[in-house]
Amino acid sequence: MSLLLIAPDRRAQAWKQVFDAAGEDIILGEAAVEDAAAVTHLACWVPPADLSRYPNLRLLLSVGAGVDQMPALPPSVRLARTVIPGISQMVRDWVVMATLMLHRDMPLYLEQARAGLWQDHQTRPAAQTRVGIMGLGRIGQLVATSLGELGFDVAGYSRSGRPMPGVPVSGPRDHAAFLGRCDILTCLLPLTDETRGLLDDALFDALPRGARLVHAGRGAQLDMPALRRALDDGRLASAMLDVTDPEPLPETHWAWDHPGLIVTPHVGSVTDDRDGARHALQVIAADRAGTTIPGLIDGTAGY
Amino acid sequence: MSLLLIAPDRRAQAWKQVFDAAGEDIILGEAAVEDAAAVTHLACWVPPADLSRYPNLRLLLSVGAGVDQMPALPPSVRLARTVIPGISQMVRDWVVMATLMLHRDMPLYLEQARAGLWQDHQTRPAAQTRVGIMGLGRIGQLVATSLGELGFDVAGYSRSGRPMPGVPVSGPRDHAAFLGRCDILTCLLPLTDETRGLLDDALFDALPRGARLVHAGRGAQLDMPALRRALDDGRLASAMLDVTDPEPLPETHWAWDHPGLIVTPHVGSVTDDRDGARHALQVIAADRAGTTIPGLIDGTAGY
Repeated sequence: MSLLLIAPDRRAQAWKQVFDAAGEDIILGEAAVEDAAAVTHLACWVPPADLSRYPNLRLLLSVGAGVDQMPALPPSVRLARTVIPGISQMVRDWVVMATLMLHRDMPLYLEQARAGLWQDHQTRPAAQTRVGIMGLGRIGQLVATSLGELGFDVAGYSRSGRPMPGVPVSGPRDHAAFLGRCDILTCLLPLTDETRGLLDDALFDALPRGARLVHAGRGAQLDMPALRRALDDGRLASAMLDVTDPEPLPETHWAWDHPGLIVTPHVGSVTDDRDGARHALQVIAADRAGTTIPGLIDGTAGY
Repeated sequence: MSLLLIAPDRRAQAWKQVFDAAGEDIILGEAAVEDAAAVTHLACWVPPADLSRYPNLRLLLSVGAGVDQMPALPPSVRLARTVIPGISQMVRDWVVMATLMLHRDMPLYLEQARAGLWQDHQTRPAAQTRVGIMGLGRIGQLVATSLGELGFDVAGYSRSGRPMPGVPVSGPRDHAAFLGRCDILTCLLPLTDETRGLLDDALFDALPRGARLVHAGRGAQLDMPALRRALDDGRLASAMLDVTDPEPLPETHWAWDHPGLIVTPHVGSVTDDRDGARHALQVIAADRAGTTIPGLIDGTAGY
């Protein structure tokens, strides 16, 4: 019974220390696998293309909170995510930061700083700035509350359109009206067949001219060439992305250099390496004991 | 009875429209003054060096909320600031943004973006990050509340040490202990003889190694060469300044280019040009009617 971890070196070394201290087997990287039949648990972000190499695999563990990057699995392999307290708050903080950065024209001020230009611009008060949040799960609700406390005029959108205290919520029937009031649009939707490619030319057309986009959902929801067109023709004034398509973004990709765009490398939530390793130990222990596996995905929700 | 406005072109044109619509005299810039004796009111940020040119000057109006840039005035000249609702919230928003940007390593991620590098770093949760706010006036209290709502471990410092609900407050006797717990230090103090040059080598020595600095007080409080030394030798990990010394920052100043530093051009609050002009009209009307002048400084507090 061994766990195979596929991860960059920093995380691999942290997990090895935690696993060694617990007296638990860990294999670092596929190249180090001597007996593929011994691999019962696999922890990774992006899984290897061919899982059939591991005939006794019984559990696939995402090292992050998301599992939408994982393939369909045979019934013998269960799927779990990493559950660490505080992850939702961490993403909320990134989204609040990004919203404030776009609201306060940081892309423009950063461009001016590169040219050594000291020049102020008029600022609209938060109370006169309409923020729309697509996706009202735990993180979306935290974001709505925090931006409301900062005085923004907040509305939400979700597939269910379920009401939320103090925040007007639209559903699919009101989608166009919702978009039409978004000075700043934030995407926090999960990746599903419905949301793939959602952020496209038609959606950017539906926003007020000069709107701003905060994207912390999934890269595959964003049509990157459409984003570039919208930034270049002024439909969007600026955007901030924590997720991109592809991911990682290649070194020479235009998105790194566009003056209206700021990209961070999927760090909305960053699981502490040691916390992630300790969660993996709990998963193994629960699996061995036959008790409830923390973070187990039931496989029915699509995300 | 005329108002002389000294301001950049954008503001000057906006004020002229508002004054023309109200049928009130306005002179745009000193070069346009034909009769210096007619100037009774002067509105500006930085005043001209020689105010004695205007023998009938009776009121000097700062176009911003601050007046510490103004010289000592003869008893015949009164001093007023621009009072616009929402200014404190606007500064609060900038400080919350700057705190989040330093907390989430935006200087590092922006530097990586310039190199096209997709690389994440470990993040400390907000709850384990100690923020210290120097200056607990209206803005400081708003900042303390908002950062507390985001889960940061907030403490405050003020000259009086006066308690604030929910936030431990230090005074001058506990200054060193206060600094020793600041993972992120925010300066919102007014400029006085006591606070001039306060942010110096000795203060940076007193912070935890690798602390971060948010400065939205006044440029003259900051020893810029000491800031550079602290960033270069690792006492400070990063800093974000909305005020600098000098101001404006010259085009070739090192601070624009330092990778650990982000500078914005004194935009924590940006008075809307038309709102500022309307406030000036209210000042003139009150002065003419002999009623209370909005934003009048009583000249005793030092700020």
